[in-house]
Amino acid sequence: MVLTKSQKVMEVFENHESQVRSYSRSFPTVFERAKGYKMWDTEGKEYIDFFAGAGALNYGHNNDKMKEKLIEYIQDDGIAHSLDMGTTVRKEFLERFNEVILKPRNMDYKVMFPGPTGTNTVESALKIARKVTGRQNIISFTNGFHGMTLGALSVTGNSYNRGGAGVPLNNTTSMPFDTFLEEGQSLNFLKKYLADASSGLDLPAAMILETVQGEGGINPASFEWLREIERLCRNYDILLIVDDVQAGCGRTGTFFSFEPAGVKPDIVCLSKSIGGYGLPLALTLIKPQYDMFGPAEHNGTFRGNNLAILAATEALSYWETDEFAKSVQEKSKLITKRMETIVEEYPQLKATTRGRGFMQGIVCGEGKEDYADKICAKAFEKGLIIETSGPEGEVVKFLGSLIIDEKGIQQGFDILEEAIEDVVKN
Amino acid sequence: MVLTKSQKVMEVFENHESQVRSYSRSFPTVFERAKGYKMWDTEGKEYIDFFAGAGALNYGHNNDKMKEKLIEYIQDDGIAHSLDMGTTVRKEFLERFNEVILKPRNMDYKVMFPGPTGTNTVESALKIARKVTGRQNIISFTNGFHGMTLGALSVTGNSYNRGGAGVPLNNTTSMPFDTFLEEGQSLNFLKKYLADASSGLDLPAAMILETVQGEGGINPASFEWLREIERLCRNYDILLIVDDVQAGCGRTGTFFSFEPAGVKPDIVCLSKSIGGYGLPLALTLIKPQYDMFGPAEHNGTFRGNNLAILAATEALSYWETDEFAKSVQEKSKLITKRMETIVEEYPQLKATTRGRGFMQGIVCGEGKEDYADKICAKAFEKGLIIETSGPEGEVVKFLGSLIIDEKGIQQGFDILEEAIEDVVKN
Amino acid sequence: MVLTKSQKVMEVFENHESQVRSYSRSFPTVFERAKGYKMWDTEGKEYIDFFAGAGALNYGHNNDKMKEKLIEYIQDDGIAHSLDMGTTVRKEFLERFNEVILKPRNMDYKVMFPGPTGTNTVESALKIARKVTGRQNIISFTNGFHGMTLGALSVTGNSYNRGGAGVPLNNTTSMPFDTFLEEGQSLNFLKKYLADASSGLDLPAAMILETVQGEGGINPASFEWLREIERLCRNYDILLIVDDVQAGCGRTGTFFSFEPAGVKPDIVCLSKSIGGYGLPLALTLIKPQYDMFGPAEHNGTFRGNNLAILAATEALSYWETDEFAKSVQEKSKLITKRMETIVEEYPQLKATTRGRGFMQGIVCGEGKEDYADKICAKAFEKGLIIETSGPEGEVVKFLGSLIIDEKGIQQGFDILEEAIEDVVKN
Amino acid sequence: MVLTKSQKVMEVFENHESQVRSYSRSFPTVFERAKGYKMWDTEGKEYIDFFAGAGALNYGHNNDKMKEKLIEYIQDDGIAHSLDMGTTVRKEFLERFNEVILKPRNMDYKVMFPGPTGTNTVESALKIARKVTGRQNIISFTNGFHGMTLGALSVTGNSYNRGGAGVPLNNTTSMPFDTFLEEGQSLNFLKKYLADASSGLDLPAAMILETVQGEGGINPASFEWLREIERLCRNYDILLIVDDVQAGCGRTGTFFSFEPAGVKPDIVCLSKSIGGYGLPLALTLIKPQYDMFGPAEHNGTFRGNNLAILAATEALSYWETDEFAKSVQEKSKLITKRMETIVEEYPQLKATTRGRGFMQGIVCGEGKEDYADKICAKAFEKGLIIETSGPEGEVVKFLGSLIIDEKGIQQGFDILEEAIEDVVKN
Repeated sequence: MVLTKSQKVMEVFENHESQVRSYSRSFPTVFERAKGYKMWDTEGKEYIDFFAGAGALNYGHNNDKMKEKLIEYIQDDGIAHSLDMGTTVRKEFLERFNEVILKPRNMDYKVMFPGPTGTNTVESALKIARKVTGRQNIISFTNGFHGMTLGALSVTGNSYNRGGAGVPLNNTTSMPFDTFLEEGQSLNFLKKYLADASSGLDLPAAMILETVQGEGGINPASFEWLREIERLCRNYDILLIVDDVQAGCGRTGTFFSFEPAGVKPDIVCLSKSIGGYGLPLALTLIKPQYDMFGPAEHNGTFRGNNLAILAATEALSYWETDEFAKSVQEKSKLITKRMETIVEEYPQLKATTRGRGFMQGIVCGEGKEDYADKICAKAFEKGLIIETSGPEGEVVKFLGSLIIDEKGIQQGFDILEEAIEDVVKN
Repeated sequence: MVLTKSQKVMEVFENHESQVRSYSRSFPTVFERAKGYKMWDTEGKEYIDFFAGAGALNYGHNNDKMKEKLIEYIQDDGIAHSLDMGTTVRKEFLERFNEVILKPRNMDYKVMFPGPTGTNTVESALKIARKVTGRQNIISFTNGFHGMTLGALSVTGNSYNRGGAGVPLNNTTSMPFDTFLEEGQSLNFLKKYLADASSGLDLPAAMILETVQGEGGINPASFEWLREIERLCRNYDILLIVDDVQAGCGRTGTFFSFEPAGVKPDIVCLSKSIGGYGLPLALTLIKPQYDMFGPAEHNGTFRGNNLAILAATEALSYWETDEFAKSVQEKSKLITKRMETIVEEYPQLKATTRGRGFMQGIVCGEGKEDYADKICAKAFEKGLIIETSGPEGEVVKFLGSLIIDEKGIQQGFDILEEAIEDVVKN
Repeated sequence: MVLTKSQKVMEVFENHESQVRSYSRSFPTVFERAKGYKMWDTEGKEYIDFFAGAGALNYGHNNDKMKEKLIEYIQDDGIAHSLDMGTTVRKEFLERFNEVILKPRNMDYKVMFPGPTGTNTVESALKIARKVTGRQNIISFTNGFHGMTLGALSVTGNSYNRGGAGVPLNNTTSMPFDTFLEEGQSLNFLKKYLADASSGLDLPAAMILETVQGEGGINPASFEWLREIERLCRNYDILLIVDDVQAGCGRTGTFFSFEPAGVKPDIVCLSKSIGGYGLPLALTLIKPQYDMFGPAEHNGTFRGNNLAILAATEALSYWETDEFAKSVQEKSKLITKRMETIVEEYPQLKATTRGRGFMQGIVCGEGKEDYADKICAKAFEKGLIIETSGPEGEVVKFLGSLIIDEKGIQQGFDILEEAIEDVVKN
Repeated sequence: MVLTKSQKVMEVFENHESQVRSYSRSFPTVFERAKGYKMWDTEGKEYIDFFAGAGALNYGHNNDKMKEKLIEYIQDDGIAHSLDMGTTVRKEFLERFNEVILKPRNMDYKVMFPGPTGTNTVESALKIARKVTGRQNIISFTNGFHGMTLGALSVTGNSYNRGGAGVPLNNTTSMPFDTFLEEGQSLNFLKKYLADASSGLDLPAAMILETVQGEGGINPASFEWLREIERLCRNYDILLIVDDVQAGCGRTGTFFSFEPAGVKPDIVCLSKSIGGYGLPLALTLIKPQYDMFGPAEHNGTFRGNNLAILAATEALSYWETDEFAKSVQEKSKLITKRMETIVEEYPQLKATTRGRGFMQGIVCGEGKEDYADKICAKAFEKGLIIETSGPEGEVVKFLGSLIIDEKGIQQGFDILEEAIEDVVKN
């Protein structure tokens, strides 16, 4: 058998990279170039991208405005790496973020630059919540996903990932997420645990949640549930941390995913698309009264990734008016519609849909969980990059870039339908 | 008082950034441009850089060759963000790293790309060590520094940082580093703990160490100690993890800091300068027989920071011959000489020197610990960026770029001497 | 004011005993003598005992047959203290226990003598469950109470007691007890947590439960729930530990509290009344296939409390026929009747009743929780020893000796009614 | 082969008791009667007891005065079990303990009755230390032994016992005991860890130690070391806990083992011989200023073991004058002499001696560790009960009753020498 160029190259990963590699297994080709919502591999094959770097590329690949800024900055020998020293780039970002994002939303937060990864913002959020309250327990939620370092992993539900820790993951309590139990039960349950002095629940420093669980299976919390959670937090002096790493930066149709619910988290975790261009960056937003960190109490070498911060600053332009948000909301309807049609047309999947905005999924029903994997594999062959999520990998997850146009959405879903057709037939 | 431009800008950080900020306090200006071993602030003031991004800029700021590659790549819409999908950039790095670094040193490691920070490679190293051995304890060493996320923090000695966790840091035992006790005692102590079945030491999965402790005060382990540690690890089936995040990538005069000692760690942690250009990147090198991770068992969004990997590939060119290493070793002697002269000329500091290669420090003696801080502050005023380290901040630490020339070293030390002169006089 | 003899003596406790003392606060007198279901203080005042040493005196105070055996044994210089050396007393107990208790019930267990306290049998049970399964997590239940040493405390729900640990209580998950949520919900909830691979529940080594929760408020699990829990344990290879320290030894009307439910725990914890005479003793029963302890892996100085074991052997005589059990069951009905009458006659308490056998409680309703305390205090004044339990101390708990006769029950309840009458009037 | 009566009986233990049993393995017979320093098995064979219930029988077996009191009390239906209610027995003990023990030694402690086991007093001590200081870490020492429940086990050094926990034992740091390293090094080491802010040692709530380590191998701390430890505790506001469970109650020649060193622990743990007659009892002595427990914050069913407290009160008579202490000290010299003679006469053992008072050991030297076991087994055959201790079981440990007379000591040692002779010959 003659290996294609891509297949030969894949051997390099098999030979030299750790077994831990994953996406090069799901998407077995070698990518070379990308633009907007498209990617091309070394053999020139084009792919529609319904994955967007796991939500890190909300503004698409290689956005032209950011690209221009980056090139100019590098050309001029702008500071690339600065830790948290003062730089013009960091200064401008702080001002713009305040001007464009916080002020118009009546929000007042101090901005922390932790190490430039999602797991790092989560770790810093847990630290400050514990310091502020003097408590040690944290409430997380079933199917929550917050990162792979020990603190973030301890609030993550996935048992495969948890098992990787090699030590018990402690000082956390996993409570049922809104969608985990039938209507209202999750909340009642949590209330009862908090109210009963012998429930075994140690009063927590914070609750940490995603408003729409990404890795956990595209589970959207209802706004009412979010408000009730906030109320509970206020009643018991518990801090509310929203991990908006995946659902934030416009993915659900507003900059912060929690805006339409009207809640005001005490701490917000941002990463993934906050960097604009897919470059590593993370922010922790802390209500000023809780900003009780000492200098360098949580630090890190790559806090000052100025290229990312530069792109991030440019990315904020999308949020100067509400036009962009509206377009995302509009396009979301098309996504919903295409998904619902699939569910109807392929009763074999026993599927349902769920999600919000650009974070929606087709959930393959009981006994059909493994269809999701097959569908995504087949879709990849046909030129669509799309991934599964959920505890059993049972959800086909749309996570495309916010800049994708109607045509792109239609094309992607056409491929997806073809893939489903193929899978269902066999 | 009229505020300078820089001073006005500093207010932005005070108003919008978390209290956790630190370097903008030590170096109170706003930097704009950098090249090689120099930085300039918004007012055009020039600084000699003896700090090099805390060791993340071994090849200097904005290295021309890497810069060129970056611009070209961005221009061509190369993949910026890829998670761990196959990309040409990742493929080329893996090949080059094997060709230029591993093979010539007779090393065989699988390469893991964890999240692009030092703390993340450490977390992944601890995980795999625990998985491979089925044990939970890890031996770390006094004054070790490995990162700020919960797992890495648990092997870090600094009590200020540890306190930030807000929960007990467990499943680790802090043993005395080579230099912590008088000659030979540290090793004897560790041997006794391992040999005595009632010592209270739980047999560890791994020992993790820096060969030259950076944040801990530029403490260099002797090669004999390193070899003895390796021997102990072999005898008790304990994995040896060398955290070469700061001491690696040539900083001590060889690519890996442990080369001259002749030890072969089971796991090596790399970050900081591995990215070449100061862009976030980290690697975990794992002996093939211990590469027992499952796919995605440890993952992360920014594993595929292709710009960093591209620069990292270019940076490997420095290691194609031994010329670069030799020049570093040569220049190290000058650094040592200048430091020793200072120690002699300023007996008021009761100082000594220590370190290896481009990682050397002037240790202010008992009762004079606070001189270090004053000296660095004064040096900054005079145009030199240099930082302290050590448990009491008692060490003036040289951590300049490896590409600095003799002139730069001399200039920097001249400024340093002036600063000392000033401080000592008052 | 002239102090009574008892009041003067109480000062000794205030002056010399730690603040931790509690029952000398609830029952402020000095007791001198006791027999059957009665106690007398130093002033000769007689008390009906509805408390029975918190369930440690199921056979009443100073049972004559055991008393005779004890005196004879002490007289003959029988071994008092033996650790776990072979003694005739230990040998006879093991044989009798097997003959009278295990065999007729078709049970096969190895008997372990841990330290002679309830908390110690629980600690040993958790250890062996973790050793057998290689897992670390334990599922406990809301309102469960298992002891005060660190391991037992970690499976105890009471937040006041948990807070006393001064360290996080980890490696346990508190799931809802049968009665914690409305019908069926507790079980569904647990099933869902076990079934969902991302629920955040780490697969446990064991579940530990009381069939009727004593300190937690006299909450009886339904037999169906117990059977479903057993089924879940079997399905997931989880060990089932029944802590029968308080509910065992006949308290609910059968020797083991779980007999009528038809479940077969893998491990059973016994203490309190197993010693017969109120002397310290505890047993851990382990299914032979799980008896994987190494010699002395869990040990303790007072495992061989031969006086207690001697009395325990004699106590087994009560179980040679089913007459005793039947009489307990018969008398339980009277207790239920008297309680129900109280609930009806004092609607002001908004009370309900619950429990099984000689473990029943009057639960003061919402907003009336503090009545329970007042009622018990008033009852004490009137010559009845009775205690509260439950997370808010809202339950008036009957825990009298199994040997109490109808007259004693009536007398006690007459006093209780008088006390309620007094309390309700004010 | 015809089984003896004892051998037949041993089968009962094999058939019905858990594998965890240990002393019935070392001393394979069935004991029936005991008096003073002698025991008899079911076949009438007499044994000299150099073991004294692992130090729980300092006043010998079945002491006549206590025996008389016990019989009388039981006869009169005195309260046997009382939890911590007021009883005349508890009152009298508190007064006598204060009068006879505390006052004459100028000591002021509140007395806590935890559950009646050594491990329980240790657990309560750790709790109160953590509560008082608000810190979580505890310093324990190499080869320390404090009990088998999770908290006590976490400060115990023995790896076999630690392994039994099945979970990591955390929130403790094991520091070198006085005798663990060569002269002075242990102390210097600990000082350095406390002084260095980056040593990785979390400032502890308390240090817990035995002045002579029992299970750890009869290691006596020097008085100077104890004083230095106390000084360190004072300097860092660390509480000093002396676990005098085995070394207390006269075993080293004074009531408290720490008296001759002149230290004043903040918390003292007593158990074993405090009960006088070998009945389960434990006390925690707490300096009044640290008695910050809330009512019932640490409780337990068998705190009020009145038979034990009655005997304990009688046992205090031994301490009314210093005659008893002096006799113990006198007899200790004979023990030392006999041990030293053995060491000289049997150079094959490469043995040394160590210990204090009635807690002395013959330490079989390197490569000869297994002799200890063989010697004790042979001695048992010849009618002497004596046990090994130490991390490798290398110490033949004398732990006889304090009431043994010279003749008994000589007889016992004669048997021991015979046993050694036999072992050495083969």
